Amino acid sequence: MPETIPDNSVGIVVPQTLSFDQPLQLSCGRTLAKYELVYETYGTLNSDASNAILICHALSGNHHAAGYHSIDDKKPGWWDNYIGPGKPIDTNEFFVVSPNNLGGCHGSTGPASINPETGEYYGPDFPLVTTKDWMHSQARLADKLGIQQWAAVIGGSLGGMQAMQWAVDLPERIRHAVVIAAAPRLSAQNIAFNEVARQAIMSDSEFHAGHYLAKNTLPRTGVSLARMVGHITYLSDDAMGSKFGRELRTDSIKYDYDAQFQVESYLRYQGEVFSESFDANTYLLMTRALDYFDITEDYSGDLGAAMKQTQCKFLLVSFTTDWRFAPERSVEIVNALVEAGRDVGYAEIEASQGHDAFLLPIHRYQDLFSAYMINVAKEVSTT
Amino acid sequence: MPETIPDNSVGIVVPQTLSFDQPLQLSCGRTLAKYELVYETYGTLNSDASNAILICHALSGNHHAAGYHSIDDKKPGWWDNYIGPGKPIDTNEFFVVSPNNLGGCHGSTGPASINPETGEYYGPDFPLVTTKDWMHSQARLADKLGIQQWAAVIGGSLGGMQAMQWAVDLPERIRHAVVIAAAPRLSAQNIAFNEVARQAIMSDSEFHAGHYLAKNTLPRTGVSLARMVGHITYLSDDAMGSKFGRELRTDSIKYDYDAQFQVESYLRYQGEVFSESFDANTYLLMTRALDYFDITEDYSGDLGAAMKQTQCKFLLVSFTTDWRFAPERSVEIVNALVEAGRDVGYAEIEASQGHDAFLLPIHRYQDLFSAYMINVAKEVSTT
Repeated sequence: MPETIPDNSVGIVVPQTLSFDQPLQLSCGRTLAKYELVYETYGTLNSDASNAILICHALSGNHHAAGYHSIDDKKPGWWDNYIGPGKPIDTNEFFVVSPNNLGGCHGSTGPASINPETGEYYGPDFPLVTTKDWMHSQARLADKLGIQQWAAVIGGSLGGMQAMQWAVDLPERIRHAVVIAAAPRLSAQNIAFNEVARQAIMSDSEFHAGHYLAKNTLPRTGVSLARMVGHITYLSDDAMGSKFGRELRTDSIKYDYDAQFQVESYLRYQGEVFSESFDANTYLLMTRALDYFDITEDYSGDLGAAMKQTQCKFLLVSFTTDWRFAPERSVEIVNALVEAGRDVGYAEIEASQGHDAFLLPIHRYQDLFSAYMINVAKEVSTT
Repeated sequence: MPETIPDNSVGIVVPQTLSFDQPLQLSCGRTLAKYELVYETYGTLNSDASNAILICHALSGNHHAAGYHSIDDKKPGWWDNYIGPGKPIDTNEFFVVSPNNLGGCHGSTGPASINPETGEYYGPDFPLVTTKDWMHSQARLADKLGIQQWAAVIGGSLGGMQAMQWAVDLPERIRHAVVIAAAPRLSAQNIAFNEVARQAIMSDSEFHAGHYLAKNTLPRTGVSLARMVGHITYLSDDAMGSKFGRELRTDSIKYDYDAQFQVESYLRYQGEVFSESFDANTYLLMTRALDYFDITEDYSGDLGAAMKQTQCKFLLVSFTTDWRFAPERSVEIVNALVEAGRDVGYAEIEASQGHDAFLLPIHRYQDLFSAYMINVAKEVSTT
């Protein structure tokens, strides 16, 4: 292992791809005849396949959750703080599977893929997929990998919602659900921010009704704006304050509309970088999957009834300054689980970073997450 | 008075315009050779001009704060809940002056006006103005109206910031400042939302570097997006939840990107209407004036030192669910005023509506505002 890669890293990882030829019936009524899923794995599957963990990613995430793709990589995968030898999701104990979601833009079949039936980009013709569709596609991935039951399904934000979907809809295939910084469904405000993002993308003159790849262009402005809006909602007011305050990039105010405050140039830069690497149609699809997510949809809005379907144990985590999916949203779920008689742990973590906290190394969060996962590992050993 | 207009309305009002030929030196270093201000007045100025009240408007506000322009008007002015006979700002007691700010787009000279020196629209060449510039232009308006000292300067949000600017910079010309839902300066998050709005406008292909009027077009998409973002920040999560929830416009989910949730169509409609009536350059200018506002700018960031300059009495009001300018921001000001030995009243009003609450009829807010203004009126009578 190269010297630059720390000992507690999973090291260099190589993404793998599996093809699925059995048609997948989707929530929207359409069927996907065939598709590919790209995924990474960390650790080793044990003989009875009882130590497997599924990582579900959030809106802009992907399969690269831990380790490095090459020794030149500047940054490891998005959840490297939590996945690795000796880390909360301990790869000495677990076999971790981290797929890119169907509809994504990092290797799994999605709007930026070529439709094998037409030889053209799917673009806007790629069907809208939901958390349920993701769950079913992940279940098929589990089947191919020989995993009948996950030791745990784990995710933050939209990833946490997928973990909940597994717990409710495929209860016999999951022993633990770790649901971090999530909610039982989106609020009107959540949907409103998503709608602004979508309008920004769809009204970009380079969007071409979603056929921008065929036109050899990208709706950079719209995606950049969407990312800027999103970024603000991932951070707390406090976190932005301590990161940027009212600091200027120049010595004094210039009285124009250039980026003068540090926070302006930061957001513009983040938006621009994102707009080069993330597919606009995937962004639309992911925000719509969020809007449509409602763990109570098959239970007439009754969260208690939904949670009664579950059989697994739960850990729920929220963060004090997360205003996108505030602690109260997690408490709703916890209360419904307690009411249903489930074994549920819950921690509201004191953290200044807002929604983004779920990605960051925070001592109490790490300790608590580790403690929970050690118990998950103990069950594996005795399985 | 027409039957349709309620008894406690100021009735039909006619905007007036005053021209100013003395050059106005602006904060940005430029000078405005001449300009006009449009304003409305309600009530009667008393003989010693001691009962005059200045109303300062917020980002998208204007001079039409109360009453109706015609009997066909569907809605009265924007603060009709608080200005009128028997209302908190009682027009039986006070002479109320409500100007449209310089740089506005409702009659006062601004980017959408013709530059008399060129015969063309000012457009992006209109100088960026600040709360200080507004204060100086309002002081000249007071001079012309024969008002040496305001009984009170009153405003909410950006309007409250102007009231503070008066109290600090022209302390001898103001007896009371009523500062509602404001802050001593914008936070990084506030600036970030403004920046998203500006980027949306400036990246609209119809913006033409601000010369859209000369091109006989409007950057409707950008202004609409900017308004959508703004609107979300004016409402609380709770207010949006109780107003819209997750209600669909159709019987069931349609799995596309049309406006399906009520909150989506509401935001789109609000954005579209606004984009037809509000000048894009004015929106840029107003958000920038907000960004630049810092009541401590001449006092090295020392809020206490700034507040020591004041001589008037104060009422500050905040609203529990206002996350744009949260109660803590008002408390900062109150603490600095108390420290400076000023006479200051403060109320945090329980309200579910978020920042927008400052415009809405809320009993405790009305009662408290009225009680304060009755004391202001008593001072007038004994002047």
